[in-house]
Amino acid sequence: MFKLLKTSQKSQARLGVLTTARGKVSTPFFMPIATKAALKSLTANEVKNLGAEIILSNTYHNYLRPGMEVIKKHGNLHQFMDCDLPILTDSGGYQVFSLSNLRKIDGDNIAFRSHIDGSKHVLNPKKVVDIQVALNSDIMMVLDECIGLPAKRQDAIKALDRTTRWAEMAFNYKQKLNKKSVKIKKQLIFGIVQGADFEDLRKRSADELMQFDWDGLAIGGLAVGESNDVMYKVLDYTTPVLPADKPRYLMGVGYPDNIIEAVKRGLDMFDCVIPTREARHGRLYLWKGKPSVTKKDFYKTINITNAKFAKDKTLLAEGKFGKYSLSYLHHLFKTQEPLALRLATLNNLKFYLDLMLEIRKAIKNNKL
Amino acid sequence: MFKLLKTSQKSQARLGVLTTARGKVSTPFFMPIATKAALKSLTANEVKNLGAEIILSNTYHNYLRPGMEVIKKHGNLHQFMDCDLPILTDSGGYQVFSLSNLRKIDGDNIAFRSHIDGSKHVLNPKKVVDIQVALNSDIMMVLDECIGLPAKRQDAIKALDRTTRWAEMAFNYKQKLNKKSVKIKKQLIFGIVQGADFEDLRKRSADELMQFDWDGLAIGGLAVGESNDVMYKVLDYTTPVLPADKPRYLMGVGYPDNIIEAVKRGLDMFDCVIPTREARHGRLYLWKGKPSVTKKDFYKTINITNAKFAKDKTLLAEGKFGKYSLSYLHHLFKTQEPLALRLATLNNLKFYLDLMLEIRKAIKNNKL
Repeated sequence: MFKLLKTSQKSQARLGVLTTARGKVSTPFFMPIATKAALKSLTANEVKNLGAEIILSNTYHNYLRPGMEVIKKHGNLHQFMDCDLPILTDSGGYQVFSLSNLRKIDGDNIAFRSHIDGSKHVLNPKKVVDIQVALNSDIMMVLDECIGLPAKRQDAIKALDRTTRWAEMAFNYKQKLNKKSVKIKKQLIFGIVQGADFEDLRKRSADELMQFDWDGLAIGGLAVGESNDVMYKVLDYTTPVLPADKPRYLMGVGYPDNIIEAVKRGLDMFDCVIPTREARHGRLYLWKGKPSVTKKDFYKTINITNAKFAKDKTLLAEGKFGKYSLSYLHHLFKTQEPLALRLATLNNLKFYLDLMLEIRKAIKNNKL
Repeated sequence: MFKLLKTSQKSQARLGVLTTARGKVSTPFFMPIATKAALKSLTANEVKNLGAEIILSNTYHNYLRPGMEVIKKHGNLHQFMDCDLPILTDSGGYQVFSLSNLRKIDGDNIAFRSHIDGSKHVLNPKKVVDIQVALNSDIMMVLDECIGLPAKRQDAIKALDRTTRWAEMAFNYKQKLNKKSVKIKKQLIFGIVQGADFEDLRKRSADELMQFDWDGLAIGGLAVGESNDVMYKVLDYTTPVLPADKPRYLMGVGYPDNIIEAVKRGLDMFDCVIPTREARHGRLYLWKGKPSVTKKDFYKTINITNAKFAKDKTLLAEGKFGKYSLSYLHHLFKTQEPLALRLATLNNLKFYLDLMLEIRKAIKNNKL
């Protein structure tokens, strides 16, 4: 499933190809986010044209709305949202713990109330696999417990033990389903390493997970309020423990600098709401000069609503998705035209996708 | 500039081709509206892919924001908004009379305050030509005075006289500019017939305008609150007075039935905010069965937020711009995803553009 093509001579940065049921994806890659089966103002086809080879969607949100009956009626999540790219779905665990109300864990069941209408639901490791089977995501994630940082050691251990137990349940259940269906067998499944910022706990989590033959491993529990230093330190001691022949996914990260630092530490997969969320607020990512990640200070962010852009004819994303100037986008934000959100989102996603392209180029040339 | 290809054997409906500086447009046609240099959530290229051959933009809005300096800096309106389709611009007269504050007419000058920031401005027939020259619109409209219906005869006469005088000033000024610039000469200019719902006044307006060699003539002052019967009656007695060898533009109309009735009476050009505005409110235009305008009851409108569409797999616009079901669009509206507005707008504009295609087919086959 995963072919490691090379490791940089300058760092642990890796170049690879991940094969999914819906096509190959070059690593390291970034996944644009379709939280509620929609990429904000963009279609999947548009994001594909920008250079995305895979997107991410959220199990918790899809499960609550439109609900599995509607998605099953369409066949799967891809057909529901008209997307022919591979889709990675998370487990919903993070949202159950952060969004839902009246959450109660009873054994391996999480009982919760929908943050939308208060309706009662139960998730558990097997049901989360079942949902992702119904979504027919190309990469599914196991149910885990993600805690914030800083964390008490005692809480981290509790979450870690639960995460390992749930991972085992999910893995074994998926193995059983694989025997019944080639379609399910083609869905990849990733384990998630937890352990907060405790070195021994991270290693213990990784060791425990590695008893099972995952298609890839994720590092969860980061990008939850910690400093960059803490994040990088956790990566420094966690990544070397992970098997080299499997893709490594850093969940929910991050800013361009975070991604580059993580790539240097051997991470392969990323997702983050930053490019789309900041687009909504008129914050644009722009290259300083020619796209490149090997020079210092290679990008900037601007607030497009600032008056100084009213007459700036610089093109968004070097005109790669149409010849729209900063001046035009400034006008669209000022006049509150819905096209504003769309062009800003296109710009930021194009930046992130080109960032990954430049990262892959740099690894190839041993420049990163 | 205008080539009349045929007139239906069943009505006054005409088939033609209008040649503009940026390409040929088949008549009868409908112009999607880019009020503030943006087609709501769509790009000009997308609207072109839907089948649009020309769009409309509003002089008043562009003049106030971003203002002429910014547009001139980009070259023209097409370059500002990245549009290679022909653009018709209105004169701004309608908006000055309906939107702006503290409006005062002094001779041929309209002094007004911006509805946005209260800033003071003056428009007159020549300045309106100058602005449209700077926008480099492919079809420009003369400054007119459009009054609502019902109207007092006395008010209608006053507005009509002013409209004729302003049209003459605009026409002569444009002729003078033509001699100085081939680019300006290629911009078409249309006169606007006023006269409220008084038969003699409409004829008088048309007669007075026809002293000048316009590239086309518009019927203004309709779709301003009158019944369909009044609108059709005005068309019944106004259209026959207009020259057959020039395109006829019914401004601001309308619903599909209005367009068909107007086409039957010999009108060639239409624009309306209905498809985009109703999309915003989740109101969708759908064909009943195969697209056709020759059967009765050929379309329907639905409110996509209605629960009955939650599981409806019928595709928007027969899947012509992606395979999005009513169920998916229902979900996007319910979850307030920005893609909702876009897909609804695509659907409604596709419906209107296909409506015009079907109308042209029906005229060709003498079925309308």
